[in-house]
Amino acid sequence: MRLLTFSFQNQTHAGALRGDEILPLPWADLKPAAYAGYDAIVEAAAAAQPIPLAEVVVQAPIRRPGKIIAVGLNYRDHCLEQGLTPPDRPTLFTKFSTSVNRPGGEIRWDPGLTQSVDYEAELAVVIGRPGSRISVEQAYEYVFGYTCLNDITARDLQRMDKQWVRGKSLDTFCPCGPVVVCTDEMPDPHGRRIRSWVNGELRQDSNTDQLIHNVADLIAFCSQAFTLEPGDIITTGTPGGVGEHRQPQAFLRPGDEIVVEIDGIGRLVNHVGPYLS
Amino acid sequence: MRLLTFSFQNQTHAGALRGDEILPLPWADLKPAAYAGYDAIVEAAAAAQPIPLAEVVVQAPIRRPGKIIAVGLNYRDHCLEQGLTPPDRPTLFTKFSTSVNRPGGEIRWDPGLTQSVDYEAELAVVIGRPGSRISVEQAYEYVFGYTCLNDITARDLQRMDKQWVRGKSLDTFCPCGPVVVCTDEMPDPHGRRIRSWVNGELRQDSNTDQLIHNVADLIAFCSQAFTLEPGDIITTGTPGGVGEHRQPQAFLRPGDEIVVEIDGIGRLVNHVGPYLS
Repeated sequence: MRLLTFSFQNQTHAGALRGDEILPLPWADLKPAAYAGYDAIVEAAAAAQPIPLAEVVVQAPIRRPGKIIAVGLNYRDHCLEQGLTPPDRPTLFTKFSTSVNRPGGEIRWDPGLTQSVDYEAELAVVIGRPGSRISVEQAYEYVFGYTCLNDITARDLQRMDKQWVRGKSLDTFCPCGPVVVCTDEMPDPHGRRIRSWVNGELRQDSNTDQLIHNVADLIAFCSQAFTLEPGDIITTGTPGGVGEHRQPQAFLRPGDEIVVEIDGIGRLVNHVGPYLS
Repeated sequence: MRLLTFSFQNQTHAGALRGDEILPLPWADLKPAAYAGYDAIVEAAAAAQPIPLAEVVVQAPIRRPGKIIAVGLNYRDHCLEQGLTPPDRPTLFTKFSTSVNRPGGEIRWDPGLTQSVDYEAELAVVIGRPGSRISVEQAYEYVFGYTCLNDITARDLQRMDKQWVRGKSLDTFCPCGPVVVCTDEMPDPHGRRIRSWVNGELRQDSNTDQLIHNVADLIAFCSQAFTLEPGDIITTGTPGGVGEHRQPQAFLRPGDEIVVEIDGIGRLVNHVGPYLS
C-alpha cells in the first residue's frame, strides 16, 4: 500500500493511493494512521470514496513527527568523498519537527543566517509501532513504511555551532514524501537506487545497499537509547555528491529545483524560494 | 497562576493549582492548554470542581513537547569550572520528547550503554504562542511560563558521539515540573536562586541572573532559526557544580535522590531506579 497526506477543500487528511485516485482516511495525517495500525487503514480505505489525485495538494506524510532521528556518514561513498573512515557506530543527530516541508514546498532561508545551503537525498524510515531495545532480527516489525527525505543543511551553521541541530533544523529544511510505501509493498528497502538532481543535473547516484548501517541496524541502535513511537522518522544518511564536496563547491540558490528520487518510492521535488528578508 | 499536569482515576489532565487543591482543566496536558491560551485557562479554572492535590500523581507538564531546545554553557560559573570562555552565541542542542520524565519518576539506564550519568539543574521556558524571528523586545509575549528541568546527561555518550543528542535523550533523562508558573505570577525569571542536591548534599547553587544569554536573548536567537510553537521548551543551561567537574568526579548511581529547586517555582525530586537489564 502507498499512503500519503493531502489537502483538499481546506482540510488535510491521510489517504491511500490507488492509481491516480486517493482514498481519504479518517486521520489528519499518517501519524495517527500509524497509531491506528495497518489493518484499520486497510478497512478505512475499503470504505472510502475516491478523490482524483490531480485535485489535491500533497503534504508531508507526517507534519510534526515526534522525533526525526538522523544519521551522519552512513554511505561508503559519502565517507570517501570526505576522506573519512566509515564509522563503527552511527552518528545520530536530529532535525526539529518544525523543519518539515511538503513535496513542492519552497525551501527558504535568511541569507544573514546562512550562505551555504546544501541538499542530501535520503531514505527515511517511518516507525509504525512503539518499541524500545528492539533486536536487529525483529526490527522490521516496527517499520510502517519508507519515504524520501531531503536533509537540507546550512553547512556554515553546522560547522560553526559544532552541534548540528541549528544547521539541520531551519524552517522548511526537511522536505519529505511524496508517499510512504508500506512494508507490504516494500519488505526490503535495500538495493534501491537513490539519486538527486539540482536543476536537472545529476548530483547523487547511489544505492541503498551502500548503507554502512542498514535499516535494521539503525532501528536496533536507536531503540537502545530512545523509545521509538509511531510516526517517528529515522532518516538513514546521504550518499556522496553533496554540494559541499564538489569541486568547486555548489550551494543552493533561490530558484534552484532539487529532486530526490528513490526507485520504488517516488520523486520528491522542491524549489528554493526567495530569500527571507 | 500555577499550572500542572496530573493523573487522577486513570485519566490525565491539565490543572490549575489553588493552595492544596487542583482545578482540573479540559485538556490532556499543558500543550493543548497553551494552544487554547491564558484566557481560556482562566475561564475553565473558574468553572472547575477542585480535587485534593494529595490524591493525584503529578506528571510532566508537557508529556511530548514538540521540541526541547537546550542550551550548552550558559552560566558564567559552569564555563569557569571547565576553563572555558563564555561563548558569544548560544550552543543549541536537543533532548528528544521521549526522554521526558515526571516529578518523582525513576531515572534509569542500561549500564552497558553509559557509566557516567550526570545531573544538570535548569530553568526551562515553556512557549505559549507560535512565533518566528521574534525580537528581544517582544520575546516575553511568547512565554507561557517557567518550570524546573533536570537535564540528565550520559557524559560518556556525549563525549564519544560528539553530537550530544544520544547522551542527552535516553528515556527518563528529562525530568521536568512540578508546575509551570505563568508570566502573570513570574514576569521576570531572572534573579532566582537555582540549586540542586544529590542525596541531600548541595551540588549546584547559583542564580538565574548568572545566565550569559538571558531568556529574551534565547527566544530571539532560537526563533531566528526555528518557528516556536506552544508547548515547546527552551531549557536555559545549567550552572556550575555538575558531577563531571567535581574532584573527584561524582556520577549518579541507583538509589540516588536528585533535587532541583528554583525559588518561586518549586522542587523537582527524582530518584535513580535500578539499572535496566
